[in-house]
Amino acid sequence: MDFAEYFPIWGKLTDSQQQRLASNAEVLRVKSGTVIHNGSMDCLGPLVIRSGQLRVYILSSEGREITLYRLFERDTCLFSSSCVMPDIQFDVIIEAEKDSEMWVISACLFKQLMEESVVVANYANQLISSRFTEVMWLMGQIMWQSFDKRLAAFLLEESALENTPVLKITHEKIAGHMGTAREVVTRMLRYFQSEGMVKLTRGAVEITDRQKLRQLAQ
Amino acid sequence: MDFAEYFPIWGKLTDSQQQRLASNAEVLRVKSGTVIHNGSMDCLGPLVIRSGQLRVYILSSEGREITLYRLFERDTCLFSSSCVMPDIQFDVIIEAEKDSEMWVISACLFKQLMEESVVVANYANQLISSRFTEVMWLMGQIMWQSFDKRLAAFLLEESALENTPVLKITHEKIAGHMGTAREVVTRMLRYFQSEGMVKLTRGAVEITDRQKLRQLAQ
Repeated sequence: MDFAEYFPIWGKLTDSQQQRLASNAEVLRVKSGTVIHNGSMDCLGPLVIRSGQLRVYILSSEGREITLYRLFERDTCLFSSSCVMPDIQFDVIIEAEKDSEMWVISACLFKQLMEESVVVANYANQLISSRFTEVMWLMGQIMWQSFDKRLAAFLLEESALENTPVLKITHEKIAGHMGTAREVVTRMLRYFQSEGMVKLTRGAVEITDRQKLRQLAQ
Repeated sequence: MDFAEYFPIWGKLTDSQQQRLASNAEVLRVKSGTVIHNGSMDCLGPLVIRSGQLRVYILSSEGREITLYRLFERDTCLFSSSCVMPDIQFDVIIEAEKDSEMWVISACLFKQLMEESVVVANYANQLISSRFTEVMWLMGQIMWQSFDKRLAAFLLEESALENTPVLKITHEKIAGHMGTAREVVTRMLRYFQSEGMVKLTRGAVEITDRQKLRQLAQ
């Protein structure tokens, strides 16, 4: 199995640790739109992404969302295993944004490995630190960037991820990513359209002036 | 020395690790207002707080602040040691809010300990997870709580920390804690005053109706 290739610290583990992981890790295939993990009551175990794209987001008590970050091929996700880390006391939701394939390591085995291996413990450390860094970046954006800049940056990122200037995404969905209301997104997109940066059609946003959008985002 | 009493994982360390820590940890005493750590270029090493109060905050490129969390007696601070954790790629500033006394562990020794001891590595993990949780709580507040609720909660927290209903704090300073402009704070405090919840005097905010403020904060 090629799990070994995808798990970054494989080479630093002992034979016994490698064996336990190899016999434990199970392949999970999910369709785009599947919710893989929902809040801290779930404790699936860490995920190692083989292909696809996951979105990690939080939800307010009124049902408003904000995307924290995304996970791609070769990323490891620890937040699907919150029971292993009792000091992570916030709930995230993990959803497949594309058809995805991943390995699931059982929470129980990962906990054992974290307790016996300094390599695994420090790897967990490194993962949490990286996610913390992404969230701090997002917080700076929310606090200090105006919404037009954030939206411009979001459209450019989406376009790069999907490798197309025509984004098939609703205003509602964009609002969910950005933690705001649909009306706010619609208003700003109409302004972008009047400035010639995008063209709005039913269910899609087409980027028509990438250069101008980029200048705004900076 | 009583470092052993204040360092939560002391009892789980080996004799050699205890000895190295005991001979390495140095007492640092600072006056209120002292900046102890400023961004990731600094790498003092972890701090174990013996007494006092530290504030950890971030700063925008335009000089606006927001308080992330505070540290008190018996807390351990890792962000003063960012060089030990290369995946923490954001800059925080750590400032004494009261006269404070702490031990500094050298970054170099702590790095060694993290690499050799699963106990230390998991302790670092636990600390980062706790701070991450505090920041996620703050993000939820910023995104989804109206400013009046946040300000009410801030005044109540300050009053509890200082153990007095009369907060000697400027509107400017409150704005720095909350990541907003002074004018916004002044406007809201005047509204609180008109509702009888606080009384504003030169350089101070007095809480006059704690009950009402608490209801608002909830």
